Amino acid sequence: MNRTIAALATPPGTGGLSVIRLSGDDAFLIADRVFSGKIKLSDCKTHTIHYGEILSDGNLIDKVTASVFRAPNSYTGENVVEFGCHGGFLLANQIISIILLNGATAATAGEFTKRAFLNGKLDLMQVEAVADIIHTNTVAGIHTAARQLNGNFTSSLKLLRKELLDVAGLLELELDFSDEGIELIPKWEIKSKIESAINYCNKLADTYVSSEIMRSGYFVGIVGYPNSGKSTLFNRLLERDRAIVSPIPGTTRDYIEENLYINDITIRLTDTAGLRDTTDTIEIEGIKLAESILEQSNLILCINDIAMGSTNSDKLMEKIATKYTNTKLLIVQNKIDMIAHNSDNNSSKLLYISAKNNIGMEELKDYVYKLAKESVERTSDILINQRHSLLLKTAAEFMKLALKSLEDNYENEFIAMDVRKSVKILGELTGETWNEEVLEHIFSNFCIGK
Amino acid sequence: MNRTIAALATPPGTGGLSVIRLSGDDAFLIADRVFSGKIKLSDCKTHTIHYGEILSDGNLIDKVTASVFRAPNSYTGENVVEFGCHGGFLLANQIISIILLNGATAATAGEFTKRAFLNGKLDLMQVEAVADIIHTNTVAGIHTAARQLNGNFTSSLKLLRKELLDVAGLLELELDFSDEGIELIPKWEIKSKIESAINYCNKLADTYVSSEIMRSGYFVGIVGYPNSGKSTLFNRLLERDRAIVSPIPGTTRDYIEENLYINDITIRLTDTAGLRDTTDTIEIEGIKLAESILEQSNLILCINDIAMGSTNSDKLMEKIATKYTNTKLLIVQNKIDMIAHNSDNNSSKLLYISAKNNIGMEELKDYVYKLAKESVERTSDILINQRHSLLLKTAAEFMKLALKSLEDNYENEFIAMDVRKSVKILGELTGETWNEEVLEHIFSNFCIGK
Repeated sequence: MNRTIAALATPPGTGGLSVIRLSGDDAFLIADRVFSGKIKLSDCKTHTIHYGEILSDGNLIDKVTASVFRAPNSYTGENVVEFGCHGGFLLANQIISIILLNGATAATAGEFTKRAFLNGKLDLMQVEAVADIIHTNTVAGIHTAARQLNGNFTSSLKLLRKELLDVAGLLELELDFSDEGIELIPKWEIKSKIESAINYCNKLADTYVSSEIMRSGYFVGIVGYPNSGKSTLFNRLLERDRAIVSPIPGTTRDYIEENLYINDITIRLTDTAGLRDTTDTIEIEGIKLAESILEQSNLILCINDIAMGSTNSDKLMEKIATKYTNTKLLIVQNKIDMIAHNSDNNSSKLLYISAKNNIGMEELKDYVYKLAKESVERTSDILINQRHSLLLKTAAEFMKLALKSLEDNYENEFIAMDVRKSVKILGELTGETWNEEVLEHIFSNFCIGK
Repeated sequence: MNRTIAALATPPGTGGLSVIRLSGDDAFLIADRVFSGKIKLSDCKTHTIHYGEILSDGNLIDKVTASVFRAPNSYTGENVVEFGCHGGFLLANQIISIILLNGATAATAGEFTKRAFLNGKLDLMQVEAVADIIHTNTVAGIHTAARQLNGNFTSSLKLLRKELLDVAGLLELELDFSDEGIELIPKWEIKSKIESAINYCNKLADTYVSSEIMRSGYFVGIVGYPNSGKSTLFNRLLERDRAIVSPIPGTTRDYIEENLYINDITIRLTDTAGLRDTTDTIEIEGIKLAESILEQSNLILCINDIAMGSTNSDKLMEKIATKYTNTKLLIVQNKIDMIAHNSDNNSSKLLYISAKNNIGMEELKDYVYKLAKESVERTSDILINQRHSLLLKTAAEFMKLALKSLEDNYENEFIAMDVRKSVKILGELTGETWNEEVLEHIFSNFCIGK
């Protein structure tokens, strides 16, 4: 594990500064081969910064800063050098190539953080918080992930595990006194403790959907018949001309997805091809895509062209409502500029707008924001992911078994066994127990350079 | 100029690390308001790194590193703090907001580098090299920009200016001895010196086109009649399914541009809508776009469907050749799998391929690479931009005037005056003479955070 790895740590792309990270026993040795400054990095104190040049075959590649971190006082716990070079993807790639030629290995996704975990710098919950801080698309999500990184959740989990261990311990201790018939802790109290632990785990596991929205944003799909004004609405919401619009039905073929930021919430807005039967093979392809988009939506906006009649899309909407029973649905009557109509926007299932003439758009945005906000209000100190959710539910299952044994007056050791199993599973959350497969799964969500 | 500015220095996007830069008199003061570590940053030594937390209203936002640079030993020459936070666009934005709330001003594009220039840390040629290093799309271009950043070109320019100043000085000195008829330097020698300076400036100015290719890549447009297989060829060159392909003519509407990296050269490949007269308004829009793409192409690939006859697209190609006289043109006979044909790929104006069956693609790539490579071979120590090109040409014009005066036996003072004018203009290249308008122009090409 002590070979030296290197990768771009900053996002790829154009900017003022890119940072290339080296970590491992030979980090200084390798860095000194490519870096030329006043003194050797091997001789520099920890937590100091040095100017110099990256050279390759005597040619200047870039003028850089080198930050030196000595083991164990670094992110990974190993020797670390960070080169700050001029931004730009190609240059950073060039410098990384030179570093690799001089003895480093390209870091795999999440390898720096994996080393931090293996060296005891972070527990698994914190590792996952790191990934969430990077990938999360909402401000509220980032704050939650920061609390998780800080170990707030880890502490409350430790408390829970300690309580369950105490329960198991007491149950086992009683066995020693079983002949005397001494009850160290009343059964009703054990029952109540296990029940509240089950409740805690299940409630937490159930925040998985909210956490996903915090991470990735609130998915809003726009559907309707061709030419109902979906792309016009899409552009209007984004406040720019993203999708080509034309009076010809079937203009949109590929689906188009963009982020819309309303206050602290990220909305993932998707414009789809008009839903109809068509013989145009390209459009059919687009319509298939539209259906896969709807499946992952949290909210579907059904756009109806009111000039064609306010019930014109009823059949389509009914079909969607039947197919996506768990998804929220809003009927949007568009093109109200085209007809005289009596309407107000106070219904929770129906809005009247004119995307073209910018009528009712604020109401629509407010509506979407309110729904999105409600859906993330349940998370507090952790963003639950699928792994957590599964572990929490499994732990709860074992506790339920213990509860059943308790109610059926089984021997204490049976009850304690299941309690201990649940404790072990909760230990997997923080990584007190882990295996390579779990690590592989977790770090597969990481980007290279972290 | 000493208000403290702040901005994201690394590219926006997803990565392990983002860096936020603060620069100005109050950089430490402001940083200490948002950062909580073991000691205050105001008390830290220059070029040291410190762990800590970014807090907002007592809430943990992120755990970060803070790098401290004390004036004048920083990029800008001012007090600088760089916060290294977890990657991710939203988080970085959050932290910047907090910093701005605590007294910093959002940095404008290039403002850090502008301060570096005004504080004498970089000359203008080096400033422009910084922008080129970041934005340049080819490895060769980056190396050239690095040499420019290192001042290689600045030195050779200084030599030239010194030589011209010597010429002017000698001419003026002779005036003092004009009564005695003493010639301090033979006229033919002055003539030769000025001529070679003109030659140097013009040659350099002419590398503007090559420099642009080094910066942005070599532009290759793909054109042809609908259904000639342009999108199939486009996908094949990129080695992935980027454009939707279908047997229906007119599938591509928006134009699609992607980068293709062949060795050290970046090819900017553009797929266009098929060129034909059409009544479909969306396609016509696409075709108008196609024409604007062709105008900026360095090479146009004319794709012909050989199954329709090898001369099927001749009229179109002739039209393109007449319209874009300065652009290289290659005829690509596609779909050779469909017919029996006698052909080899040794012509410099014609290639036979089957994009679908991957025949002739290597020859095509080689051809494009060879042309692109040839076109950038003339640049050495500087990437000439439009500003440079104009200044160099203007300087050469004044030298030509001097030469004319010399040949017409004008008084030395007339000759010297024009030589001095050219020297002054060459001074604008490095920024020895500058005005706010020039700076504004230069820094408008910068991104925020640099």
